[in-house]
Amino acid sequence: MAEITIEQARVMVRETLAKGRQMGLKPLSVVVLDAGGHVKAFEREDGASPGRFGIAQGKAYGAVMLHMPGSAQMARAEQQAYFMAAANGVFGGQVVPVPGGVLIRDDAGVVIGALGVTGDTSDNDAEAALAGIEAAGLKGEA
Amino acid sequence: MAEITIEQARVMVRETLAKGRQMGLKPLSVVVLDAGGHVKAFEREDGASPGRFGIAQGKAYGAVMLHMPGSAQMARAEQQAYFMAAANGVFGGQVVPVPGGVLIRDDAGVVIGALGVTGDTSDNDAEAALAGIEAAGLKGEA
Amino acid sequence: MAEITIEQARVMVRETLAKGRQMGLKPLSVVVLDAGGHVKAFEREDGASPGRFGIAQGKAYGAVMLHMPGSAQMARAEQQAYFMAAANGVFGGQVVPVPGGVLIRDDAGVVIGALGVTGDTSDNDAEAALAGIEAAGLKGEA
Amino acid sequence: MAEITIEQARVMVRETLAKGRQMGLKPLSVVVLDAGGHVKAFEREDGASPGRFGIAQGKAYGAVMLHMPGSAQMARAEQQAYFMAAANGVFGGQVVPVPGGVLIRDDAGVVIGALGVTGDTSDNDAEAALAGIEAAGLKGEA
Repeated sequence: MAEITIEQARVMVRETLAKGRQMGLKPLSVVVLDAGGHVKAFEREDGASPGRFGIAQGKAYGAVMLHMPGSAQMARAEQQAYFMAAANGVFGGQVVPVPGGVLIRDDAGVVIGALGVTGDTSDNDAEAALAGIEAAGLKGEA
Repeated sequence: MAEITIEQARVMVRETLAKGRQMGLKPLSVVVLDAGGHVKAFEREDGASPGRFGIAQGKAYGAVMLHMPGSAQMARAEQQAYFMAAANGVFGGQVVPVPGGVLIRDDAGVVIGALGVTGDTSDNDAEAALAGIEAAGLKGEA
Repeated sequence: MAEITIEQARVMVRETLAKGRQMGLKPLSVVVLDAGGHVKAFEREDGASPGRFGIAQGKAYGAVMLHMPGSAQMARAEQQAYFMAAANGVFGGQVVPVPGGVLIRDDAGVVIGALGVTGDTSDNDAEAALAGIEAAGLKGEA
Repeated sequence: MAEITIEQARVMVRETLAKGRQMGLKPLSVVVLDAGGHVKAFEREDGASPGRFGIAQGKAYGAVMLHMPGSAQMARAEQQAYFMAAANGVFGGQVVPVPGGVLIRDDAGVVIGALGVTGDTSDNDAEAALAGIEAAGLKGEA
């Protein structure tokens, strides 16, 4: 399995934030988690609220731990709220099941991590994330 | 960024309680959190139930960590209960998403903390909070 | 049992801080807990570090839950560290067993709450606390 | 109070890592926390173990919450192990009391955050941190 390098992580963070500026979004926060759900890189833009690390991490954590992107987690939460609540029990309350948690796949399609973005609407967060992942030559699934 | 001084915090607590007396509300409890969500001042009036610190803190904590006042948190909780439940997981169960958690902004509009009020109806709590914040020369967003 | 009134709590907070200024101490934080260990009032002076609420509460919480002032808790921690660690397990990690956690007694000697002070040395914290309690016409045990 | 900007945070992370390369240290991880203890930026170098975010955060978190750098926390832990254990209870187990947690001060000497570095010996971690903070035009206290 390919591992996300710090160089790739930096590109994803930088280009996600650049996309957010280009789209005119509110201040964003971006986290990169590796295939084990562990933090590789994070940045919170000036003006973002203080709790954004936890929200960004939560979006990405559920994605990588379950190999379900944010949109799929949200669909599940809408259909079976108790399932995502239970997942949160299992994962220590670290799962935020909404768009903006985006799976990162390598060329072979293997999940190598997840990007978590928060600050604007969940859909805008996800769009910025996809741009960042693509800029690093990887494939995103939102 | 301006910081809430202890002098401002005292004015907010005192005037929120005074407004509650003037409105004929039940005994109130008032907390002032700084921009990082940390307690600056608190008072619980005689006759209030023992658990009011936690409720007041929870109203203010979600507000400052997400830069969303209580009314916006409540709207989100009604539309996406699982999102606010997930936020509570991220923030250690400290979020109480109802009115009475009021953002405190400085002259430039920057969030410098939050006031949390509990004891009467959520809407009355919020009204008293706004009076307290205004009395300190700051701007509240309920 | 007498209950600590909000008026008494305000006097204790104000006079503890005044004593700290008179002694030339670092910025102090003062919490008043009632007989059930629940927060009645709190103030953190400007310049104090953000985590002071938790430390002040922890000093007072152990005192009121065990009816042991901070000095007695510290002696026990020095002799039997595992006992105070176990107490912390029982009480959710809220016990800080050092001076500055001062029992508040009424005229009949009954414990009606505790004052927690933090910011300077533990002994100075306790001395300021005793002055605050005495100013409210109550008896402190440090 | 000055706030750490994302631009300053990036300089601190980059220059701390550059100092580590220059000193020939093992792979480092660097976190920047703001004055409220909330994550502003983080990077984990390739080859670092997966749990490094938590260690870096823990070094910086205790520093900023108590305004005590890692060296002072370590001295306290050696003299009063139960005090730092209790602080960890109060702060949710997030405190790692060893060098590498470095206070960041502005020109006026006010604490505006902390840098947490982990990966090599604690003393080397702290030395790299100080270089990173200085490169951003701020003052470090290790």
